[in-house]
Amino acid sequence: MKIDGTRLWERVQRLGQVGRAAAGGIVRPAYGEAHAEAVALVAGWLRDAGLEPGLDETGNLIAVLEGSEPELGAIALGSHLDSVPHGGAFDGALGVLAGLEAVQTLREHGVTPRRSLAVLGFADEEGNNFGIGVLSAQLWIGEIPPERFGTIRDRDGRGLDAYLAAFDVPGVPRVARPELAAYLELHVEQGPVLDGDGGAAAAVESIVGISRTTVTFTGEANHAGTTPMALRQDALWGAAELALAVRDLGRASDGRAVTTVGVFEVTPGATNVIPGGVRMRVEMRCPDETRMADMRSRVEALAAEAAERNALRVAIDPWHHAPAVPMHPVPLQATQRALVDAGLPERTMPSWAGHDAKVLARAIPVGMLFVPSKGGLSHSPLEDTAAEHCAAGAQALLHAALRLADDDRL
Amino acid sequence: MKIDGTRLWERVQRLGQVGRAAAGGIVRPAYGEAHAEAVALVAGWLRDAGLEPGLDETGNLIAVLEGSEPELGAIALGSHLDSVPHGGAFDGALGVLAGLEAVQTLREHGVTPRRSLAVLGFADEEGNNFGIGVLSAQLWIGEIPPERFGTIRDRDGRGLDAYLAAFDVPGVPRVARPELAAYLELHVEQGPVLDGDGGAAAAVESIVGISRTTVTFTGEANHAGTTPMALRQDALWGAAELALAVRDLGRASDGRAVTTVGVFEVTPGATNVIPGGVRMRVEMRCPDETRMADMRSRVEALAAEAAERNALRVAIDPWHHAPAVPMHPVPLQATQRALVDAGLPERTMPSWAGHDAKVLARAIPVGMLFVPSKGGLSHSPLEDTAAEHCAAGAQALLHAALRLADDDRL
Repeated sequence: MKIDGTRLWERVQRLGQVGRAAAGGIVRPAYGEAHAEAVALVAGWLRDAGLEPGLDETGNLIAVLEGSEPELGAIALGSHLDSVPHGGAFDGALGVLAGLEAVQTLREHGVTPRRSLAVLGFADEEGNNFGIGVLSAQLWIGEIPPERFGTIRDRDGRGLDAYLAAFDVPGVPRVARPELAAYLELHVEQGPVLDGDGGAAAAVESIVGISRTTVTFTGEANHAGTTPMALRQDALWGAAELALAVRDLGRASDGRAVTTVGVFEVTPGATNVIPGGVRMRVEMRCPDETRMADMRSRVEALAAEAAERNALRVAIDPWHHAPAVPMHPVPLQATQRALVDAGLPERTMPSWAGHDAKVLARAIPVGMLFVPSKGGLSHSPLEDTAAEHCAAGAQALLHAALRLADDDRL
Repeated sequence: MKIDGTRLWERVQRLGQVGRAAAGGIVRPAYGEAHAEAVALVAGWLRDAGLEPGLDETGNLIAVLEGSEPELGAIALGSHLDSVPHGGAFDGALGVLAGLEAVQTLREHGVTPRRSLAVLGFADEEGNNFGIGVLSAQLWIGEIPPERFGTIRDRDGRGLDAYLAAFDVPGVPRVARPELAAYLELHVEQGPVLDGDGGAAAAVESIVGISRTTVTFTGEANHAGTTPMALRQDALWGAAELALAVRDLGRASDGRAVTTVGVFEVTPGATNVIPGGVRMRVEMRCPDETRMADMRSRVEALAAEAAERNALRVAIDPWHHAPAVPMHPVPLQATQRALVDAGLPERTMPSWAGHDAKVLARAIPVGMLFVPSKGGLSHSPLEDTAAEHCAAGAQALLHAALRLADDDRL
């Protein structure tokens, strides 16, 4: 049973026109006009496939292919329909359209899976409106109850409740959410690993954990001429030492962690004044919680040592820690075997970025498949994935769905 | 012949009330009300000393004690009357009042020097109005002709010509500038060296040169999760390496240079984005032009090496170089010997900050004396110098003036 790679590719191209901006890329924030247009377009294709699409109470597009045992929980195949500002045509969209392609292929072959399959297009993953990433997935699993929707506000104070009340796509009725037994998501890697070595697809073993720590060095702003080197308390000295030590921690992990200092603010920031303060943010991502805990305490020790060596004070604020989310063993095995089913080599890798699946994993078993991002680019108008890789990913998604639809362990 | 240390101290304290701000420190920008009040106050003291003070065409306060050979160029004793915002009572003011004290002491002892002596209070040294430091000294030596005064504008577009037209101090007439043979300036060190080892005063050997180079590292802003360490072009890595190398250059100079990275701007500056660019400014100060030239080429080489090691591009813009200004040998010798005349140990040091003398040196021989700044603090309400050190400095200034007034080498 082969998916139709040409049809999938044409739909990816067509959906990629929705929200296309004059300045380049796609601008398709959740609940905006372009999002509604995307829902209408994909709903039409779902109807073409013989399904009955609808919108749930938070604007997610849903269509269910009923299984032979519909009382069992359904397997959802999906991703999100919104985009970052000036994003690409693959991030999110590919996962929804591949789900549609898998289900349509089954329909066309007259195959009725044991469990129902649900095509799912989340509304808000990118967090453009409210600054909250993977919002729709959080709403799906009930982490934010409806009575709090009014407290989630955009920059102008408009609440999520107002967005939802105004979001209407003609011809797409309101539907209830199906009960889900598992969630499968095909996504572009958004990194250069598969593209770099010619890989076609990979099963995702886990979504990496993220730790974020703010380190603030305080010295003494002073005259850059009259203050001898030996009497300086230059906050940049300690901060630069820590930035390099953080780099070296990531390098020493041999591919099992990445470390970044993306925020690095030097004050007062004048040519002839010794920096009195530096505020920096250290971000670390790692699929392994033991290693992450080691790295976190290492960063704290390194910050204290850099402060000591340079006669500075230091404040360390580990303000964010999202643990790594391993894929559930059943869908992980299904995605791994599905690669072989699809004629691809077995391959497993971590996801270094967050996804809807990361949130859904708190409620149900999830699995993910990756296809390459050319040049590793994402969140960019230059985002690109070859048609053959989109097709390979969708083919594997179909096989993973068939395996899960028949799996009694869920 | 002893200067009156108590009178000098009382005048420093009194002048330090002019422009005193509720928020602390002295706010006395050139040509403002507080500056006019300061001119009126010091002019009164100059008249008390039997002199006839006046304002020259750019608002500098001048009073001349005529020598026995007035056709010879005069020796000016001075500094500036303006302050930085919320500055202290000593920076500038001490040099003017010590000049007055030296001349008044001579008058009181009935001594007529061979050359005339001029007490000089520059209007604009700190550059508060126009963002141009040591402006009055530049105007004095004719580097900016009067027809261009209208092009020197403050933030609101008001020109220097308008400032000068409006600057009037009742009772202080317009006077012509005297011809100067040399300039002597007593100033607070503005650094911690003398205060740190109990020194009372020092002759200044040279005003250090200043080199400023902007170094811009460019890498690639990218996803902080999905980009493996080995494929990153993180501009912060190169910039942090250079910042530490610049520190080490200054440290290795053994007190003969200071090096500062005061500006260090990281873009785009987001927690989860690899820095694509860093713009940093390297400032180096050194009394020795040979060493400075070495350091400048060293910084360029270090920047190129840091870029190479971290797969970055680098642009190096050495946009400012003010060479070190050695004191003229005749006034340097006079200030050195004047310390001994005043009963102080001989001591010579560089000035790590710029001064009016640095500009005047382009036109006439100059010499400088330093007294300690408590804790090295300057440009601060906490700026302080002990009364005994003010007196010692004024005593040495008197002796230096007497030596120069009789020196045929000028």
